[in-house]
Amino acid sequence: MHKEQRQKIRTRLSSAGLNQALFSHPESVTWLTGFAPPVELGGHQFAGGPALVWYEDGHFTLIILDALGGFAEKHHEQADVDVLTYPAYAIDRPITPHANLADVFTTFLKSVAEGGQVGLERHTLPLFLYQILDQTLNPKAIEGIDGWVAKLRIRKTAQEIAILRRTFALTDVGHAVARQAVAVGMREIDVWGATHAAMNSHAGHRVPLGNDCIVTDRKGEHQNIGGWPLDYPIREDSALIVDLSTRVDGYWSDSCATYYPQSPTALQVKLHRIIEEALAYAISLIKPGAVANEIDAKVRAFIERAGYPAYIHHTGHGVGVGLHEEPRIVPYNDMPLEPDMIVMLEPGIYIPD
Amino acid sequence: MHKEQRQKIRTRLSSAGLNQALFSHPESVTWLTGFAPPVELGGHQFAGGPALVWYEDGHFTLIILDALGGFAEKHHEQADVDVLTYPAYAIDRPITPHANLADVFTTFLKSVAEGGQVGLERHTLPLFLYQILDQTLNPKAIEGIDGWVAKLRIRKTAQEIAILRRTFALTDVGHAVARQAVAVGMREIDVWGATHAAMNSHAGHRVPLGNDCIVTDRKGEHQNIGGWPLDYPIREDSALIVDLSTRVDGYWSDSCATYYPQSPTALQVKLHRIIEEALAYAISLIKPGAVANEIDAKVRAFIERAGYPAYIHHTGHGVGVGLHEEPRIVPYNDMPLEPDMIVMLEPGIYIPD
Repeated sequence: MHKEQRQKIRTRLSSAGLNQALFSHPESVTWLTGFAPPVELGGHQFAGGPALVWYEDGHFTLIILDALGGFAEKHHEQADVDVLTYPAYAIDRPITPHANLADVFTTFLKSVAEGGQVGLERHTLPLFLYQILDQTLNPKAIEGIDGWVAKLRIRKTAQEIAILRRTFALTDVGHAVARQAVAVGMREIDVWGATHAAMNSHAGHRVPLGNDCIVTDRKGEHQNIGGWPLDYPIREDSALIVDLSTRVDGYWSDSCATYYPQSPTALQVKLHRIIEEALAYAISLIKPGAVANEIDAKVRAFIERAGYPAYIHHTGHGVGVGLHEEPRIVPYNDMPLEPDMIVMLEPGIYIPD
Repeated sequence: MHKEQRQKIRTRLSSAGLNQALFSHPESVTWLTGFAPPVELGGHQFAGGPALVWYEDGHFTLIILDALGGFAEKHHEQADVDVLTYPAYAIDRPITPHANLADVFTTFLKSVAEGGQVGLERHTLPLFLYQILDQTLNPKAIEGIDGWVAKLRIRKTAQEIAILRRTFALTDVGHAVARQAVAVGMREIDVWGATHAAMNSHAGHRVPLGNDCIVTDRKGEHQNIGGWPLDYPIREDSALIVDLSTRVDGYWSDSCATYYPQSPTALQVKLHRIIEEALAYAISLIKPGAVANEIDAKVRAFIERAGYPAYIHHTGHGVGVGLHEEPRIVPYNDMPLEPDMIVMLEPGIYIPD
């Protein structure tokens, strides 16, 4: 698993003259190893820190909590990366996951070379782990490598594209249920719950669910553009914006649609048709060599030519182990598209109140 | 909000001679301020780091992302703590939340006193924020204050007890639905989805949901004790362990029960009755002055006297802004109970396979 990803970072680190690095960003860890711990309750309650990946001389070691559903065993069998675990839950001693992680990390670092130059993800590395590394390895220099992985993630491997197809297929299941669940008398949160339950049942296990589920008649500035589902009711002339993201094998989807409890009004039919055309137009613009902000400008202009203000959010963005990745289809971004970039698109029309 | 909590930490820091401290553990931040960002997708995708609370001379400042549902405005109105925000999402420039947080944090630190002794939660403070603090404040000394807040959290305030009552009331809603949803032909994950949807609908907004939802006929060592719901079917003679945790206003519940798809078997009736009696007995032991591990030993002995092996997990534990808190009702813990500690209890009987 994820061999191509690891080869990319090997090349990148090597070209920077780094033969040791520590990855601590959850998205980096997932991309390098496939390890994607559940996110539904935030972090794991017994974790002593983020999952870590130590890189040295082309070799990768994953350091994780021991209570994560057989992941260590699975990875050992595949002989993909080494896996070190630290204990957390116990009833015969206090739960001290940070101390346990510190012990395992210290022992491990004593087995690696001292005095080199070490790459660190400074945005996500907890201070106590840095202090252990600093004292144990006495590095010659530290180099911040935040964002290095994110840049390498933009073009997807065939394996990643296959996973993303599955994650979007599961998202389609959610959309089909949401469309049916939209009815007068239901509230935003009711549609959300039915959608999430159906996606869980289809997957056969828990999946996380973002992003937006709101009636378009929410009042107030920017209030009808997006937001978490609340108890606003669906009325006869409401439209419901349903923007769903889920994660399969560590990779996120993102897909938005608008549904109606009954036959849409004439205005809703008109707006929906414009957006369907804008979306088809946007899709037609996505090809290698096209420039992100030129696509963005063209789709915004399409909406404006139809007589409505352009949306205030992005036209689209990449997806992967992060929910928003490059290429962002936004006004400032002069990135040219390349093959194997995966982009979601979501033009919209929003009329205040 | 949370004034009593802040007074406790003021006293604690003051007694340690600390007049500056930085809190970065999410549970500390919630306990000190009431700020409890959603956890359903893990961290916020545009956050530059954990929410922070800076303490100085008795005064508290919360530093958070600007996209969190009006929390800053709400807190400003209540004049409880100062709130600083940093921007993240934008379409006219790259999304650089870490740089934005670094800027706001640096500017803020320039306004505070240099050269003092600073308390830090080293387990959760990202390296880049520590480096900013180190360079900007040039502290005389750093003192690790990890776990200080957790110790102060054990006895709950009246406000916290009121919140916990609401959290457990919502959990009861989930249990009522789960009990009804258990039927032959349903799977673990189906019951879970129905339960979660009902809790969301009752709350009127998304709530997170843990912990376990498994049929007791899962095979393999320790496999029928707990776990996330999967697609195991509920059979005629299955029992379903449903252990629910949710969070209301930052405070977690935890409540376990066992349900049956039809009339339980004679053995299930027997085991269930023993556990009901064990639970009633355990509750009777919870009183000020009782010692945690003595309670634990008595409840385990109760199960063993009934002819079954004692469970391998805790007898119970505290709940609060953390899902597992002190007092842990476990074999090693000689902590005496005090008034206003809130404990959940979950004795069980598990027979292999």
